[in-house]
Amino acid sequence: MFTRTLAALSLAAALAAPFNLNAKTVVDSERASFTIETVADGLKNPWGLAFLPDDTMLVSEREGNLRLVSPDGQVWPPLQGLPEIYAKGQGGLLDVAIDPDYANNGRIYFSYSEPGEDDSTNSTAVASARIQDDKLVDVTRIFSQQPKVKSNAHFGSRLVFANDGTLFVTLGERYSQKDDAQTLDNHHGKVVRINTDGSVPADNPFVDTKGALPEIWSYGHRNMQGAAIHPQTGVLWSGEHGAQGGDEINLDRAAKNYGWPVITYGEDYGGGEIGEGFKKAGMETPVYYWLPSLATAGLTFYTGEQFPDWQGDLFVASLKAQTLSRLDIEGERVLHEERLLKDELGKRLRHVVQGPDGYLYLLTDESNGAIVRLVPAD
Amino acid sequence: MFTRTLAALSLAAALAAPFNLNAKTVVDSERASFTIETVADGLKNPWGLAFLPDDTMLVSEREGNLRLVSPDGQVWPPLQGLPEIYAKGQGGLLDVAIDPDYANNGRIYFSYSEPGEDDSTNSTAVASARIQDDKLVDVTRIFSQQPKVKSNAHFGSRLVFANDGTLFVTLGERYSQKDDAQTLDNHHGKVVRINTDGSVPADNPFVDTKGALPEIWSYGHRNMQGAAIHPQTGVLWSGEHGAQGGDEINLDRAAKNYGWPVITYGEDYGGGEIGEGFKKAGMETPVYYWLPSLATAGLTFYTGEQFPDWQGDLFVASLKAQTLSRLDIEGERVLHEERLLKDELGKRLRHVVQGPDGYLYLLTDESNGAIVRLVPAD
Ligand SMILES: [Ca+2]
Ligand SMILES: [Ca+2]
Repeated sequence: MFTRTLAALSLAAALAAPFNLNAKTVVDSERASFTIETVADGLKNPWGLAFLPDDTMLVSEREGNLRLVSPDGQVWPPLQGLPEIYAKGQGGLLDVAIDPDYANNGRIYFSYSEPGEDDSTNSTAVASARIQDDKLVDVTRIFSQQPKVKSNAHFGSRLVFANDGTLFVTLGERYSQKDDAQTLDNHHGKVVRINTDGSVPADNPFVDTKGALPEIWSYGHRNMQGAAIHPQTGVLWSGEHGAQGGDEINLDRAAKNYGWPVITYGEDYGGGEIGEGFKKAGMETPVYYWLPSLATAGLTFYTGEQFPDWQGDLFVASLKAQTLSRLDIEGERVLHEERLLKDELGKRLRHVVQGPDGYLYLLTDESNGAIVRLVPAD
Repeated sequence: MFTRTLAALSLAAALAAPFNLNAKTVVDSERASFTIETVADGLKNPWGLAFLPDDTMLVSEREGNLRLVSPDGQVWPPLQGLPEIYAKGQGGLLDVAIDPDYANNGRIYFSYSEPGEDDSTNSTAVASARIQDDKLVDVTRIFSQQPKVKSNAHFGSRLVFANDGTLFVTLGERYSQKDDAQTLDNHHGKVVRINTDGSVPADNPFVDTKGALPEIWSYGHRNMQGAAIHPQTGVLWSGEHGAQGGDEINLDRAAKNYGWPVITYGEDYGGGEIGEGFKKAGMETPVYYWLPSLATAGLTFYTGEQFPDWQGDLFVASLKAQTLSRLDIEGERVLHEERLLKDELGKRLRHVVQGPDGYLYLLTDESNGAIVRLVPAD
């Protein structure tokens, strides 16, 4: 028995051996062969990633640092001038985005957990700023989730520009406030749509609805850490964690109710149902879901030239499952899922972004986190 | 090293231990807890299963026997009077079906590999008959796939009644004739739609197309061993094997081209592409596909009362993968797949049928094959 345990342990140790990213191991997947390259490491729980026009990366660390990383992987000291950030639990500095007109206005955007007056409450906020040398200037808060509550969880969030230049912000229901996701008098469990100056687009779906907050685009969400615009249709696709499973991909349309916490595919811990089941009139079902949960995070559509057979596919990073899911999309259907990287990388993945070079960039969620990228094998 | 190998072997042996079907092990799956019961065994590679109005089962054995199995599991001697059957390779006695008006006309249907004049060629045929005591009477061939060719593979087939009383027959492309799947002057790689007397329905899609065989409903198929009518929409959903992977579920609509061998998700043995890729104008993409292949066989929609949370789900039996896939369907999308039975049963599964009692019945593809059923756990 002792011998068998030892054998099992040494087998387990061999299976868990760290993947040597310098060895240029070729991953042969269904539609592409690639290597995994480390672009930069030493990043503390990186959360958001965006590329400036000169290919410099803007990366957030959840504890509250915003950094530039040069294309050759040099990590710069934190930019100064961030607002006060509530960096506890799931809170901190979250997503980053670059203005579509950055070449003219130089503006960047970031979401973060914003403390209340006395630090006992908080919510998710969005600010814009410009980078000047090693600091942020013209820092302007353009959105603040209402109301602030006492919670360390479910802040969301992703920042995604629609094709019309408006900004989608995905927001969690703060865990303690899940019933709020079904009412329109708050920003919990919502996608909001704003202009970049923080004003409300005149064509938002609830601007004429009495008692509804006018920023709301869609509701009935749980905790959304992934969102992307479909490259052909312009529709927002979003990802959210289910309770005890049931992570969802939704087609996020104006005024629609995505069901949480009334309907969900998640199971209760004992295997029972939460809420009222899986479907209800007036509530949208997801386009795809995972049970058991992968703990999905960032997602992106691939449109580059480096991986021709990945064009149009939706890539979804996951934390607990440590995989990058490739979803083969046809219209608004998911035809097939391939799970990548669990064996070859084996790290919690917070985000996936297509680089300007057409490589796929990933953030590993670790205290010594990294930016890695997938590069076609020769 | 020797010790480790022994330990590994004994671990493997433990994992491969046969599942004791009499132990009433409860399988706790995502949406149901059930036990697996053996209804009958000693069946040689059972292929098709249908229920008569008195709950007696009609089951085919591929080598060329058609048997009745009483509801309590008693297996009766083969019915006499079958036509000559070419039972080699994948050929033999295949699917069975019961006339929707069986109560009045007593007719059954079966598909089989029919030898040519000199036994060097063959094709798939369909006959109808009535059961009288221990034999078949009024045996009438109602369809014969044209042309007959020299091949032991890809016969199809499933027999499925549409809601209008016409009969769909799914037909393989005979492997050696795959290019035939793209032309309408033959029955290779086709779904055909016939009346139960063998005549051609006047509203078949190609009845007015010069050079086209009028029985054809859809084309561009490979080898279809699964088909079922959607309980709400009445649309035919079919399953087919891909080449080296890429098993497909298709929504099988009149006059549509399902792409084989021009487009496929299957990979070549070296990992390269077959045909021209995955998509082409004028060809339908599947609603879902598996890569690597499961080797999918029979399929059915569940509509019973025994498993309320399975209602509307599509169940797909697979041979190589030894699983029963449960596909959660919403409209014409597959939202989620759960794979059942591999660990608890671990047998090649040829078919899945809902019984009149609402249990799910399966055929295991073995020389000592069985009818097993899934029964809700107490
Ligand atoms: Ca939902
Ligand atoms: Ca096809």
